[in-house]
Amino acid sequence: MTVQTHRLKNGFRIVTENMPGLKSASVGIWVNAGGRHERIEQNGIAHFLEHMAFKGTLRRSSVQIAEAIEDVGGYINAYTSREMTAYYARVLADDVALALDVVSDIVLNPIFDPAEIEVERGVILSEIGQALDTPDDIIFDWLQEVSYPNQPLGRSILGPEERVSNFQKPDLSTFVSENYSANQMVLAAAGAVDHDELVRQCEEIFGDLIARNQSPVLQGNFCGGEIRQVKDLEQAHFALAFESPNYKNPDIYTAQIFSTAFGGGMSSRLFQEVREKRGLCYSIFASAGAYCDTGTMTIYSGTSGDKVAELANITMDELKRAADDMSEAEVARARAQMKAGLLMGLESPSSRAERLARMMTIWDRIPSLDEIVAQIDGVTTETVRNFAGSMSSGAPAAMALYGPVADAPAVEKLQARLVA
Amino acid sequence: MTVQTHRLKNGFRIVTENMPGLKSASVGIWVNAGGRHERIEQNGIAHFLEHMAFKGTLRRSSVQIAEAIEDVGGYINAYTSREMTAYYARVLADDVALALDVVSDIVLNPIFDPAEIEVERGVILSEIGQALDTPDDIIFDWLQEVSYPNQPLGRSILGPEERVSNFQKPDLSTFVSENYSANQMVLAAAGAVDHDELVRQCEEIFGDLIARNQSPVLQGNFCGGEIRQVKDLEQAHFALAFESPNYKNPDIYTAQIFSTAFGGGMSSRLFQEVREKRGLCYSIFASAGAYCDTGTMTIYSGTSGDKVAELANITMDELKRAADDMSEAEVARARAQMKAGLLMGLESPSSRAERLARMMTIWDRIPSLDEIVAQIDGVTTETVRNFAGSMSSGAPAAMALYGPVADAPAVEKLQARLVA
Repeated sequence: MTVQTHRLKNGFRIVTENMPGLKSASVGIWVNAGGRHERIEQNGIAHFLEHMAFKGTLRRSSVQIAEAIEDVGGYINAYTSREMTAYYARVLADDVALALDVVSDIVLNPIFDPAEIEVERGVILSEIGQALDTPDDIIFDWLQEVSYPNQPLGRSILGPEERVSNFQKPDLSTFVSENYSANQMVLAAAGAVDHDELVRQCEEIFGDLIARNQSPVLQGNFCGGEIRQVKDLEQAHFALAFESPNYKNPDIYTAQIFSTAFGGGMSSRLFQEVREKRGLCYSIFASAGAYCDTGTMTIYSGTSGDKVAELANITMDELKRAADDMSEAEVARARAQMKAGLLMGLESPSSRAERLARMMTIWDRIPSLDEIVAQIDGVTTETVRNFAGSMSSGAPAAMALYGPVADAPAVEKLQARLVA
Repeated sequence: MTVQTHRLKNGFRIVTENMPGLKSASVGIWVNAGGRHERIEQNGIAHFLEHMAFKGTLRRSSVQIAEAIEDVGGYINAYTSREMTAYYARVLADDVALALDVVSDIVLNPIFDPAEIEVERGVILSEIGQALDTPDDIIFDWLQEVSYPNQPLGRSILGPEERVSNFQKPDLSTFVSENYSANQMVLAAAGAVDHDELVRQCEEIFGDLIARNQSPVLQGNFCGGEIRQVKDLEQAHFALAFESPNYKNPDIYTAQIFSTAFGGGMSSRLFQEVREKRGLCYSIFASAGAYCDTGTMTIYSGTSGDKVAELANITMDELKRAADDMSEAEVARARAQMKAGLLMGLESPSSRAERLARMMTIWDRIPSLDEIVAQIDGVTTETVRNFAGSMSSGAPAAMALYGPVADAPAVEKLQARLVA
């Protein structure tokens, strides 16, 4: 491994990995600020801020930001999640310094011009409209809301239209001052990068940034329940969630192995039982997502309205069965999928930089591949069965339904089926 | 370049590229058979066949196919386009021979068990339902239909429900015998691969395959017109197409440079004018797609119902303006974006294998990077302006509208605005 890390005096962290043979690099800044760092009246501001980063800085107009990166053939983008906001660029080897210059400029120096705020409001309202028009997008917002009701973690990242319609410059500045401090940021870069060069540049750019304490996030409290939106759609969209380990809990590997074996690929139980044997759906999957203090095991599928009850019931039966008879072979296969997926992911500079940033945020260091592989290998059939059992023995469940879903059983009924 | 090619006696082609340092590989078979190779009564069969490849072969059941690849941590997938069907796997270095064995098995030996056909029918009907529930997916099927009406090229890949509901084993076998012959296939592999080893294996697997003539496709005839589906959605989805060069036409590079400068990134005209200045949309793009005998310049965006007329009009005004004043700087930037995008794409084994297969299909050889770069560099501001001019001087246009789109101008009115 050629991972190198460095910490500036103010707590700003730098992590790089040179990948021999590559002619491009991915460079980004990950900020420990996302949807769950918002107070209720701020809901949507982390994402609004991410948009405003591109709308002009002390040094560059909106078009100059885009042109600076695209003139050299690179691209620049950003995303906001519930715990992080990331700003990153992919460029050829010679343009790494430029990429860091532009990415840091938009993170540190946005000016929040009121006229630009008005324009960007329209863009974000359109983004919200687009999400609402996409059933297998919006259903996950509803699932999150039912999983963590009346909590920052349960709110949508885009925010409600009413709030987005009213944010002004002071709202953006407040969120920045509360969350964008030196010790909340990680610069991650992978590919054709030079560690010392990037450290030197970061010293210059971020060296004077102030370190501040960030308010701790409100502990996520998984509650469960259901939301059902009957609508005249082609498909009945079905999403289910159980609480699962947070990312610091060693059981996260058990949860990931389980989700892979249960609904992670074509050989998984859900794919085989629901799609291959019964032809009920096109898309079906299970995945284990994790936050700093909680996590969710999510299952999604879509089917016709007359089969949504069958789909929901089979999903429950399979969950129950997994607790009894998940086999050694299935667990071994899931381990192989996770390990190979890890190796393949490392061959892309973008996913490698992303992984470095996440590891630094979570662990404040980069665990070696051997460490991770040992954790994956440590997951046994018994722990996987026990994990499945923990969900099928009366744990709270959250369910979101959208489309012709009138015939779907209530979530209580599905849970009763599990423990029956 | 370490590209190596080989042709079996029956016309089956092999193209590989070893990428030093990689620990994984992408291996796939690209078949020159897609939606446009279907007669009207076959519409949807190419895609149905792709699905049935995974439902059991002479040697493996459906679950054995999935397990063979996932046991070693790899993944296997397929897609059908209008001109190609691709089956591919990504695996670690040691499993390349296994990947080829499985991928070739599903392409050459599917059994089309009638019971499995019934099950898979349900899956595909669900896939159709999912597409219909996704406005910014289904709108492109409609745009294609308006662009190439009553022609194989204009039909949807998934096919209409009525036909998908009735396909049987002989329909699948007929399509295979008409299109899946040795001279219509390319094996492409990139990453940790050994050319000689793969050639030897291909000799064994494909050596006895028969070469047959495939019926020529019906020449695509771009007509244009409009389709407007008024529906109560959040967004008014707007898609527009003009005819543009086929992939053998050297002007394809002009079309691609134009689409990049016009709507290919954040610095592009459409992004700047429609999103950055006016805040009318979240998504907006232009892209140049190409077939063997025609191509389409596609523009897409989504906005609110009260602004769809403004969006459509501005798009037209920008197209007209581009013909007059597209600048040297914009064209130079688009060239840089295309060249860097090419280099970055080459860093992924999957996209590299995909590119090798496409090049073999189109050119029957792999053009060098220098050749491609020379073509890109050969595009001048004048040719780009002329290309924009060709669209804004009365060429047929196709438009698809979906959502609250009652207020959008008719396509004839938009075209009149162009030539005004």
